Amino acid sequence: MNAALQEPLPGVLKVATPPAWALHAARHWQQLLVDHANCEKKAASTALSLMFAYPEDTALCQALARLAREELRHFEQVQQMMARLGVPVRRLSPGRYAGGLRAALTNHEPQRKLDLLLCGALIEARSCERFEVLAPHLEAPLAGFYEDLARSERRHAGMYLDHARVTLREAMLTQEHFDARLEQLANVEAHLISSADAEFRFHSGVPVEVAPA
Amino acid sequence: MNAALQEPLPGVLKVATPPAWALHAARHWQQLLVDHANCEKKAASTALSLMFAYPEDTALCQALARLAREELRHFEQVQQMMARLGVPVRRLSPGRYAGGLRAALTNHEPQRKLDLLLCGALIEARSCERFEVLAPHLEAPLAGFYEDLARSERRHAGMYLDHARVTLREAMLTQEHFDARLEQLANVEAHLISSADAEFRFHSGVPVEVAPA
Repeated sequence: MNAALQEPLPGVLKVATPPAWALHAARHWQQLLVDHANCEKKAASTALSLMFAYPEDTALCQALARLAREELRHFEQVQQMMARLGVPVRRLSPGRYAGGLRAALTNHEPQRKLDLLLCGALIEARSCERFEVLAPHLEAPLAGFYEDLARSERRHAGMYLDHARVTLREAMLTQEHFDARLEQLANVEAHLISSADAEFRFHSGVPVEVAPA
Repeated sequence: MNAALQEPLPGVLKVATPPAWALHAARHWQQLLVDHANCEKKAASTALSLMFAYPEDTALCQALARLAREELRHFEQVQQMMARLGVPVRRLSPGRYAGGLRAALTNHEPQRKLDLLLCGALIEARSCERFEVLAPHLEAPLAGFYEDLARSERRHAGMYLDHARVTLREAMLTQEHFDARLEQLANVEAHLISSADAEFRFHSGVPVEVAPA
């Protein structure tokens, strides 16, 4: 068993991926790949939404455009990997994760911008952690691919966190507000990851068939 | 006067950019750049929407992801150009062009997919034509930048048209349907470009102050 399955990630995440999810994912890697392709598209789309929402923050927009380009490149690679491994494309409804985080966002500015950036950091950090947890359970060529992606996602989490800190200063929010929001959003994220989840997705919780009653 | 201002573009477009638009754009190149940044974001966003709408068409999704990456790179370059030329970012409402084309789309599949791809071809062809028309009216470094972009947009128009032809075959639509839809959408596009338009944008019509009564 990989140590990452027992220890929470350092940084923004509060809990490690439950071992039950990782074991389920390793057995259902085909469905994981299908949802992973969706996640890469969604990550690019989320970055673009932020570019439309905050056009005046040109440094953020440059960073988001680069991030979106990288996520799109990953999407192309996931599709190529699916073709190589004979995994057919099919439609999957989105899981509860992104919607669950979105429901926790503040509705007024500039606090909402901070929340969106902290959410971005949490999602990218979780993606990084899941790739790291999964890689040792998978065979080539998927294992190496996921190790590479883990490094990118770690960089993306850092980018979102850096821009969250810039927003803290520029919007004259307090460090207490920043810390409290990161704590609250990280708790929501941890709950989505640790609780029973009827649907299996890249960012889903504990698969129901092994969840504690 | 550039010949392109008098002669319609070969290919999918029905009319050339009116000289009045080009002269207005050359005088208001700062506002043009602001809207141009929006157009590059919008082009990436439109490609992503098509990726979400047609995930089973993996060849199309690969082409769209590459196109979206290129549009995002152009967005970054437009923002850098604005910083270099001292043009501040400001918010501009979208013009009537994309909405006008969208209103002409069929609502049922597979005809809608064909319409969306034909629309994509028309928009990219118009962008190509406008960059070609504008470049001789502008000074360095903008003139050379727009010449480069014209080549990219021409390639994008070709990609959309190629995939429209694939859709024609795969969805077993008739060549008559294809030709009729291209004709109808190109006429809508030509009307949006040739008629008086109260707002000046990258894809706007004839500026009102010089429009015929």
